[in-house]
Amino acid sequence: VTGVPFDDRGFTLGDGLFETVLADAGRLVFWREHLGRLARGCASLGLPAPDAGACEAAAREALEAAGLAGTRAAVRLAWTAGSGGRGLDRPQPPAPRLVVTAAAAPRPSGSASLATASVRRNEGSPASRLKTLSYLDNVLARREARAAGADEALLLNNRGEVACAGAANLFWLGGGVLATPALDCGVLEGVVRAALIERARAAGVEVREVHAPRAELDQAEAIFVTNSLIGVRPVGRLDGRPLPQAEAGPLAEVAAGLA
Amino acid sequence: VTGVPFDDRGFTLGDGLFETVLADAGRLVFWREHLGRLARGCASLGLPAPDAGACEAAAREALEAAGLAGTRAAVRLAWTAGSGGRGLDRPQPPAPRLVVTAAAAPRPSGSASLATASVRRNEGSPASRLKTLSYLDNVLARREARAAGADEALLLNNRGEVACAGAANLFWLGGGVLATPALDCGVLEGVVRAALIERARAAGVEVREVHAPRAELDQAEAIFVTNSLIGVRPVGRLDGRPLPQAEAGPLAEVAAGLA
Repeated sequence: VTGVPFDDRGFTLGDGLFETVLADAGRLVFWREHLGRLARGCASLGLPAPDAGACEAAAREALEAAGLAGTRAAVRLAWTAGSGGRGLDRPQPPAPRLVVTAAAAPRPSGSASLATASVRRNEGSPASRLKTLSYLDNVLARREARAAGADEALLLNNRGEVACAGAANLFWLGGGVLATPALDCGVLEGVVRAALIERARAAGVEVREVHAPRAELDQAEAIFVTNSLIGVRPVGRLDGRPLPQAEAGPLAEVAAGLA
Repeated sequence: VTGVPFDDRGFTLGDGLFETVLADAGRLVFWREHLGRLARGCASLGLPAPDAGACEAAAREALEAAGLAGTRAAVRLAWTAGSGGRGLDRPQPPAPRLVVTAAAAPRPSGSASLATASVRRNEGSPASRLKTLSYLDNVLARREARAAGADEALLLNNRGEVACAGAANLFWLGGGVLATPALDCGVLEGVVRAALIERARAAGVEVREVHAPRAELDQAEAIFVTNSLIGVRPVGRLDGRPLPQAEAGPLAEVAAGLA
């Protein structure tokens, strides 16, 4: 097979899920958490979950094939609804397809700059809590951010609440409290998001999952984006405004080793 | 090539558009309108538009290859953002990919039954006005409708306004007025939708593009769904409630020959 069949529903309709896993010199970081989220996503979409052993074997094979087994790499697992006929209805039972690839993933340096996108996050769909093959809104938001001279987008939902970045979760600090948008804002259940919340609470930091208007970010003492490949990265600029304290955020100790 | 490359952004991110065109014994119905919409979608997404001649040649080739040149068929043109590296950012300039397939499309008989889905249409994204490869929300809405014993979904947007069906536009009649959701409700700019509005107005029917709450449909004298493959089809049942007058809708004459 040299590619995805033309009738694969992941291609024709974005009907499927993916995971991006950090491979650090062959170690699959947060592997169990990624597979757990994939399985929960499958339950939400009505798809059978993939076999964990087959996923790990494919991940290691993709790393070897790309010559990346000894370095810092991103493994991408796509789990599609499989081949299907014309139209929205899936064949019953669906026969999902696994596609695993690997690519180099150098650690980003410095802080991120964010620009608020006009594209809104769809809090009214369960897909907004999942890493799906229907990621066009994220692509469009990122495109807007690039056009504004930033390197990542800030997305609000249709209620105007802060939701997430284009490919990352969002955290901010204010008055000693660590805040992050609640999942029902239309937020991906991030693996690093969950780990950071847990570690921060274990370290005695108060963490709130919030429904916050955009203006709340202007009061933040520091803002961070998180995902499996960047870990916890400070935001140095939001809509052109510098955030001078971001580099010295008190999260550094809690965040160490998350990616 | 036996399939779509693993790094095609249509597959990895749903970054692309499609058109579904009715082929009636070799005639490509509303061909110019479909290509026009595809070009407008490309402008919205920041992609170059495909060459019209190449699209038509590929459509005819797909019909021949599938042995469907002499019958009623659906031609599906997918126009993806092309191959790209890891992440949301497109390569610059993007090199889009055209994938054209054909399938038999018998005319549906009888009326449609609709069930209101919990999945909401994302009025806050331009993608909600386009036929994109990120169609998972439509898949999930249809899945809900099937589970409720209906054959198509009714989607509201996040403001609670009526938007569309899972794979069709929506019209209803009341007090001599033909109503359809305004595009900014998160509605695909349907080819048959536009043709029906134009023909109805030419026939002296008042047409309103509206922002309507779900309750307004309970007052409708008749409801219809429209798309390029079904033309104008009456809705016989909405959320379990029969709509007895749907079959005798006064749109029959206006709608004749739309598919």
